[in-house]
Amino acid sequence: MQDSTSISITKRSPQRSGGRAARVKARSDTVGRAPASGIIRRRIPTYELLTQEAVQQLEDQAEWILKEIGIEFRGDEEALALFRHAGADVQGTRVRFEAGHARALCASAPAQFDMHGRDPASRIRLGGDHLVMMPAYGPPFVLDLDGGRRYATLADFETFVKLAYATPYLNHSGGTVCEPVDVPVNKRHLDMVYAHLRHSTKPFMGSVTAPERAEDSIAMARIVFGEAYMAEHCVIQGNINVNSPLVFDDMMTGALKAYARAGQGVVISPFILGGAMGPVTQPALLAQAHAETMAGIALTQLICPGAPVVYGNFLTTMNLKTGAPSFGTPEANLSTFAIAQLCRRLGLPLRCGGQLTASKVADGQAMQEAADSMMTGILAGTNLVLHAAGWLEGGLTMNYEKFVMDLDHCGMMLAMIAGLEIDDNTLGTEAYREAGPGGNYIGSQHTLQNFRSANYLSDITDTQSFEQWRDGGQLTMEQRASKRWKELLHERTAPPLDEGIDEALKDFVARKKHALPDEWH
Amino acid sequence: MQDSTSISITKRSPQRSGGRAARVKARSDTVGRAPASGIIRRRIPTYELLTQEAVQQLEDQAEWILKEIGIEFRGDEEALALFRHAGADVQGTRVRFEAGHARALCASAPAQFDMHGRDPASRIRLGGDHLVMMPAYGPPFVLDLDGGRRYATLADFETFVKLAYATPYLNHSGGTVCEPVDVPVNKRHLDMVYAHLRHSTKPFMGSVTAPERAEDSIAMARIVFGEAYMAEHCVIQGNINVNSPLVFDDMMTGALKAYARAGQGVVISPFILGGAMGPVTQPALLAQAHAETMAGIALTQLICPGAPVVYGNFLTTMNLKTGAPSFGTPEANLSTFAIAQLCRRLGLPLRCGGQLTASKVADGQAMQEAADSMMTGILAGTNLVLHAAGWLEGGLTMNYEKFVMDLDHCGMMLAMIAGLEIDDNTLGTEAYREAGPGGNYIGSQHTLQNFRSANYLSDITDTQSFEQWRDGGQLTMEQRASKRWKELLHERTAPPLDEGIDEALKDFVARKKHALPDEWH
Repeated sequence: MQDSTSISITKRSPQRSGGRAARVKARSDTVGRAPASGIIRRRIPTYELLTQEAVQQLEDQAEWILKEIGIEFRGDEEALALFRHAGADVQGTRVRFEAGHARALCASAPAQFDMHGRDPASRIRLGGDHLVMMPAYGPPFVLDLDGGRRYATLADFETFVKLAYATPYLNHSGGTVCEPVDVPVNKRHLDMVYAHLRHSTKPFMGSVTAPERAEDSIAMARIVFGEAYMAEHCVIQGNINVNSPLVFDDMMTGALKAYARAGQGVVISPFILGGAMGPVTQPALLAQAHAETMAGIALTQLICPGAPVVYGNFLTTMNLKTGAPSFGTPEANLSTFAIAQLCRRLGLPLRCGGQLTASKVADGQAMQEAADSMMTGILAGTNLVLHAAGWLEGGLTMNYEKFVMDLDHCGMMLAMIAGLEIDDNTLGTEAYREAGPGGNYIGSQHTLQNFRSANYLSDITDTQSFEQWRDGGQLTMEQRASKRWKELLHERTAPPLDEGIDEALKDFVARKKHALPDEWH
Repeated sequence: MQDSTSISITKRSPQRSGGRAARVKARSDTVGRAPASGIIRRRIPTYELLTQEAVQQLEDQAEWILKEIGIEFRGDEEALALFRHAGADVQGTRVRFEAGHARALCASAPAQFDMHGRDPASRIRLGGDHLVMMPAYGPPFVLDLDGGRRYATLADFETFVKLAYATPYLNHSGGTVCEPVDVPVNKRHLDMVYAHLRHSTKPFMGSVTAPERAEDSIAMARIVFGEAYMAEHCVIQGNINVNSPLVFDDMMTGALKAYARAGQGVVISPFILGGAMGPVTQPALLAQAHAETMAGIALTQLICPGAPVVYGNFLTTMNLKTGAPSFGTPEANLSTFAIAQLCRRLGLPLRCGGQLTASKVADGQAMQEAADSMMTGILAGTNLVLHAAGWLEGGLTMNYEKFVMDLDHCGMMLAMIAGLEIDDNTLGTEAYREAGPGGNYIGSQHTLQNFRSANYLSDITDTQSFEQWRDGGQLTMEQRASKRWKELLHERTAPPLDEGIDEALKDFVARKKHALPDEWH
């Protein structure tokens, strides 16, 4: 898996985290582990919900929206000039595209690309049949069974980065894994990016809340990876939320342009609640999301042709009695399948799925909604799962217990996408010759040879007898998870970081913090 | 949906349960309900995990098992004679089939068939693109938050039959929805069949624990439906578990023959835990299950060509450290997809899926495992979901709370299989003309016109704000479900039953009970 690209990173960061590599190996020797993080390939087909005629109808409607309604780019003269120069119809802040124009502008984006960490083993691939999973993004609160629900702090942020590094089931460190609200809003990004670079080697997302914070994020990555290396390789991404319906503001296009100009990754993510930021019917949302994403990707390619992008989306439903967002719903699941098909027609890396829920605790609702939104994303063919672990309360809360419950489900998904290997061994012909009808296969040679690798083994699923479970304290999965996340943190080996690089990062953070007044809103 | 068949039932049972029909109508007028029970069609495609070459490999291995290893039919001379007469190689109790022979014997089974209830609206269709869902089957314990875990009683049994009748999300009343252990083991079936016939109008399953109990079940159905009607129509089924690996005992073939001879339904269900009742690798289990199911279906067709059957299975994994069954696992999910493809090559109605879990309570584990095993079954293309509601603890416990939590998920699945309707209305062109970029779509004409039917509305999902949820008592989904199942029971309208028929049923039960000594084991 190692190529010259990875080696060049190795030269910059010789600290290889031998401890971690050794641990991953030890794990793969134990019973039923899913494969470790890094480049992950899916070996199962995608689910095709819609006929190609139906996909065409949605595409046509997206083209109609782009041509007749258009997209607003507010406060960004450069973006408007770029679109005008490319031949779009720009009137005021409204940009309209002839049929097929936005799509043609997306064509220079790569079908797949790699992101690099400072450990070659952390390299990931986005697009094609590859899968990347990262923690939840953005919650201002944290919750655990011991401490209850409270505002998130930088300490929580660092803990989640460490947990995401410790698990083999996430191969991306995430972005704003929670909002460190004890740090001024205009300085948080410095501490967050430092935490990803210091406590993890996995690829990560930088700030998008202001263009200068995106620039700071990129500058910090350059301290670790070097400017020349980053001109050729993607090591950081920005997740750009569209101000749906059909609006990009200058904050978002500013961050978009910073990442794209540096040749770094951009994810374009319309966030559409049906009935609020778009019509209440799912086909409309799908066409709208497709239009918005194409417009955003078109801008990245006008800034830097070939810049690595991900076709993202966040489509869900409202509870139509209360107006509250709802997750894992049948309508959202159908949209997940359909948006994946729309993305495939463009041939770009796809973001969808996630372990989403509106529940306030890691209860049955939380895990049912999360399981459905994750399973449908995986079967749809997602390449990037934001919010793969920890998300609760519609994204307002990052939950320590659900984080490890979700990790376990990520492990299951990794085992599932490995598919069924059908060969002489797995068909077990000799086992039938040995045990025959009515026999017990537990002691058969075939079972002994295969049981270690046959099944995924969960860390926190209970399969005991009722009596064992009762005598063990009648713990729910949430209660077992409370123990498990602390173990995971304890098992972790910290990745070493060159002292000179660490000092340079700390110096950058200190200088930037010193230069700015504290802002709390 | 009503045809001459249904009318003939109506004549026998004029009590139409107008209360229920009215209630179903009332529900369909409210926001976001999934369609009511009866004949249910899926409008989404199936997920095809394996290539046709891979399916062929599994089929070939099944044929190898049937030819080289064979199937044991123990203690049933009639079955052996039938197979011998059909041309199989019978030596002692071992039956071996030349390649393609068992498959050819299955060919007379119908691709789809209807089951009739004593209310024409309760008619269901099995096979093709139709879906039937029924409660869990077999648990000796029940659990609810008020009363804790205890042995199930006839009162529990009756309550679950009433609940299954009350919900629009199950269209089958089930069989042994729990074991009424307060009734002697040799008399339970009489009370169970009476409860299905008295408290529900939905099709149901009769006893299979002894041939004479299967005969009693069929006899009681004849009191309600008439012998002539039942000679032409399926109103009752027996679920025949194979004694895997590769064995049918005379208890099971005796019940199988009783149902098939009466032209009633038979489900053939191998129950295989990988590594115990078969090899530990999933491809082997799939081939074995296919061989066992074909052999069982072949016997039904030798007894009564054209007898309605369902191609069943129950394939799951063991925790390979403890030997305990585990559910919703990645390996089980893959097998669900694959067995569906094997079944489709035979063109028969398929049983798979179910809301399965090893958890002892309706916690996160329970709902995650249940959601995954249900979602994969639905996408695989299941026609019959046993264990769609209530199952806990690997099938040892029927849980009142999980019953309604599962019902809600069944409602979601019903909404999902309706698919995406793409037309001028759902594409929402006018909404964009009205609200444009940056607008709020809540007040748009399109939203007002569509919000009632747009989204599934859950009974027990929480989408409140944290503060509302906290001030409402911080209830988990399990706690909300504790309230919900009692409401559902209260909302129910009992279906009327002709007094003469009721008396005849009671008389049958009393005579049979009087004629037998009590057996408790």
